[in-house]
Amino acid sequence: MKKLINSPETIIAESLDGFAAAHADIVVLGPERKFLRRRELNPDKVALISGGGSGHEPLHAGFIGYGMLDAACPGQVFTSPTPDQIVEAAQAVAGKAGVLFIVKNYAGDCMNFEMAAEFAERRAATVITNDDVAVESSTHSAGRRGVAGTLVVEKIVGAAAERGVDLEGCAALGERVNARTRSMGVALSSCTVPAAGTPTFTLGEDEMEMGVGIHGEPGRRRVKLTSANAIAEEMTTAIVRDLSDHLGANGAADMLLLVNGFGGTPTIELYLVYNAARLALEKRGLRVARSLVGSLVTSLEMAGCSITVTLLDPEMIALWDHPVRTAALRW
Amino acid sequence: MKKLINSPETIIAESLDGFAAAHADIVVLGPERKFLRRRELNPDKVALISGGGSGHEPLHAGFIGYGMLDAACPGQVFTSPTPDQIVEAAQAVAGKAGVLFIVKNYAGDCMNFEMAAEFAERRAATVITNDDVAVESSTHSAGRRGVAGTLVVEKIVGAAAERGVDLEGCAALGERVNARTRSMGVALSSCTVPAAGTPTFTLGEDEMEMGVGIHGEPGRRRVKLTSANAIAEEMTTAIVRDLSDHLGANGAADMLLLVNGFGGTPTIELYLVYNAARLALEKRGLRVARSLVGSLVTSLEMAGCSITVTLLDPEMIALWDHPVRTAALRW
Repeated sequence: MKKLINSPETIIAESLDGFAAAHADIVVLGPERKFLRRRELNPDKVALISGGGSGHEPLHAGFIGYGMLDAACPGQVFTSPTPDQIVEAAQAVAGKAGVLFIVKNYAGDCMNFEMAAEFAERRAATVITNDDVAVESSTHSAGRRGVAGTLVVEKIVGAAAERGVDLEGCAALGERVNARTRSMGVALSSCTVPAAGTPTFTLGEDEMEMGVGIHGEPGRRRVKLTSANAIAEEMTTAIVRDLSDHLGANGAADMLLLVNGFGGTPTIELYLVYNAARLALEKRGLRVARSLVGSLVTSLEMAGCSITVTLLDPEMIALWDHPVRTAALRW
Repeated sequence: MKKLINSPETIIAESLDGFAAAHADIVVLGPERKFLRRRELNPDKVALISGGGSGHEPLHAGFIGYGMLDAACPGQVFTSPTPDQIVEAAQAVAGKAGVLFIVKNYAGDCMNFEMAAEFAERRAATVITNDDVAVESSTHSAGRRGVAGTLVVEKIVGAAAERGVDLEGCAALGERVNARTRSMGVALSSCTVPAAGTPTFTLGEDEMEMGVGIHGEPGRRRVKLTSANAIAEEMTTAIVRDLSDHLGANGAADMLLLVNGFGGTPTIELYLVYNAARLALEKRGLRVARSLVGSLVTSLEMAGCSITVTLLDPEMIALWDHPVRTAALRW
């Protein structure tokens, strides 16, 4: 295992300390490093809290700030945060407007956020994201996994909360964005969980894992590495087929195209895949109205990427364009 | 070689097409993909042009936009852009205020930018960056190499140009920022140049290359991988020693701390190294006044990072804080 660390036991603490120091204008690290929250809170708006296992950075702490999250709870690597972390985050940031939890659909996350919602003594609602079309259930989840589409939910609902939308409205919007969002990933290499010390899985020199999850968990099948065009074609085909109920009679639609790196894939390849995915979608009469390219929902140093498509309506476009000031997204 | 590409011959073209489409609100791709330029030009300001071999993304194209570069010329992977690319970029973006070329100190880049400056028929000046303290000369350069500190020069001079500073003033400022900037890198793995198909160098399972360059060229020595704290200590010691002429009598100073990923290193490790570097600098009485963490000057998928320190004065801080709107940096 080759990593820039001091010891597997202290990775999360040291990385959180660095993150909080580097972005001290935006975030504050809570007591015992149980959560990160915005430095400037607005007690009149719905508070948005997310969290999950570490190893997916900048998700979620990198999305704390104006226009997006109010707090995030980091678990150990690929391990859910505990209910007390989430309860304390809610108590620190939620006012009378209540708190919306945004939770990726993994068994541990769902259980711990549900328990926290009971004990938080705050008006609470929960949106569970499950945008991954690769598999219907997985080693980590009952039902589809929540992956990179989660950031789209966080961005759009974050803007609505900033504009004064109430808890029910934010929850309904989150459900709507999730319902119109689909993702699929591919891995060219495994990641190595620091505490394990060995790769989560092994791929041959000419193999890829199509439909991989963001913890390196299995996807649809292991096949020979093929061209970026063929990969983008397969992933966008699966995504668009799954979105067909939401497409208009003529099939035309505006959409957000997000190409997300898993941590070990260089920027030059991400833009190349973006180009291939965009051409594949436009061939079907779909229009890319908004774009995002970057390593934003990662799986440690795994090589590979995911493609996410969200079907947009004018309200969602306006909320996507709303200003955001976080460590990882700013406009 | 495992990459998300279609063929080694078309990587740059397809990646540039994707970049230009994803950021069409900010940039325009020039004829025959010879350069990228800002969509909205300001003919009254000094034009800033940079460029160099591809494979370091988002440098330089990701830094085109308000407050930073006006154009960038991408060469093939790790290969200088040709003089005609640079001449055409200058003709497209430079007005009466002239053009400042910001060039990393590599033999090919220096030669081709110099030739272009002669033929561009524009008032021109050049700043050559050479911030890498690792080696005094290298396989790619006479004198020190220009690495991640280049983006600090581009950011600070970009703000000055936006504020109406003239060509001589921008050139002098660029020299001053470069003189107060030092960097050093470490690699945990090699990158693979697509046209070569095999890794540029090989490291043992427990080795690192201390002082590596951004093309995978050799650094100071190959040693056993050690802790992030020890790595940060060695790199900051080399940097601070080299900056000693610029430190005040009491050694105190405000500085910018940039921790830069080389492409294959996850965000969680970059913040951990940032934390270690910050503590190492503060122990010496230095103050981190501004911070930047991210994979911004990369070497394809190489694992590793660099640390850059710039000694700031109040003018430089104000220019660093000036708004910037590019694909890769925004505030």
